Amino acid sequence: MDPAYLVPFITSVQNVFSTMLQLQVTIGEPTIKGDPVSSVDISGIIGMSGDVTGTVVLSFPGPTAEAVVGLLTGTKMPLDHPDFADAIGELVNMVCGGAKGQFSGKKKVSISCPSVVVGKQHAIARQKDIPCVVIPCSTDCGDLMIEVAIRESPVHAEVAAAAAQA
Amino acid sequence: MDPAYLVPFITSVQNVFSTMLQLQVTIGEPTIKGDPVSSVDISGIIGMSGDVTGTVVLSFPGPTAEAVVGLLTGTKMPLDHPDFADAIGELVNMVCGGAKGQFSGKKKVSISCPSVVVGKQHAIARQKDIPCVVIPCSTDCGDLMIEVAIRESPVHAEVAAAAAQA
Repeated sequence: MDPAYLVPFITSVQNVFSTMLQLQVTIGEPTIKGDPVSSVDISGIIGMSGDVTGTVVLSFPGPTAEAVVGLLTGTKMPLDHPDFADAIGELVNMVCGGAKGQFSGKKKVSISCPSVVVGKQHAIARQKDIPCVVIPCSTDCGDLMIEVAIRESPVHAEVAAAAAQA
Repeated sequence: MDPAYLVPFITSVQNVFSTMLQLQVTIGEPTIKGDPVSSVDISGIIGMSGDVTGTVVLSFPGPTAEAVVGLLTGTKMPLDHPDFADAIGELVNMVCGGAKGQFSGKKKVSISCPSVVVGKQHAIARQKDIPCVVIPCSTDCGDLMIEVAIRESPVHAEVAAAAAQA
C-alpha cells in the first residue's frame, strides 16, 4: 500500500486523541495483516468509496475502550451502555474524516456512517484483494490498533495513468 | 423509514439466495431495532453513501452461516477458514448491489467493500440518528436477518424538497 495513505491516519489519530482526549498516541511499526485473529472487544468500522475504496477499522480491548470513552464523555460507562457504541463511532469518524482531508491530490472520497461491533474477542476479516496494514498505537489508557485496507479505485487509477501519459 | 427502501432488500435477498444457493427465503415481519443484543456469530456489513447514506448488515448464527457457505462454495468449511469470510462478504455484496439497482428514481449510491465480523455472540450497534429496521429471514438452512439503517442524505433531501416546491 502507498505510504501516502498511511501517514494521514497516523497524523489524524494523534490529532484527534490529543485534542479530544488529551491523550498522546505512540505509533508502533505498521505490519501487513494476516488471517484474522480474535483479539478485540470493540471495533468501529468505516467504509470509504469514490477515488479511494476500502475499509478502516479502529479496534480496542474492552478496558482500553472504557478508559478512552471515559475521557471523551467525562462519564464512566460500561461497554454495553447504549451511548458507548456512539462514542466509539464518533471517534472512528473523526479519525477517518481527518485522514481523508490529508490525502494528497484532489481525491474525492466519501466515508460511510460508522458501524460499531461489540463482542468479546471478535475478529474483522480482511478482504483478500486489498492489502490490510495494521498500525499499532500505544496510549496511557492501553493499546489500540488502526487497520487500513484501502486502495485507489481501479477506474480512477486508469484515468490517472492515462492523464500521466498524455 | 420509507418502505421504498425495504422492498428492494427483500426482493434482492430472495433473488440472490434462490439463484446462487437454490434456497427459498421466507420473510418475517420487519421490526425497528432497539438496543443491540448479542446474538449473532457472523455478520457482513456494507456502507452506502451518495444520495442514500447508511449501513446494511446481513447476520447469521454460526450453523446457518456454515450451511449457507457450504451451498455457495460446494465445500464444507468451518467459520475460521480463511475463505469463509470472503464468501459471506460476497453474499452481502450481491444482496446490497441487487437492492441498490431497485431504488426508485435515479439515485446515485455507492457501496463500500464488505467488512465481515467473526465472533461468538457479537452485536452490531445501531446509530441513534438513523432508524434501523430488522428483516427476519427463514430458510431451510436456518434463520438469518438483514438490518437496514439507511436514509436519504440530508443535502439530497433538501434539493428534492426545493425541487418539489418549485
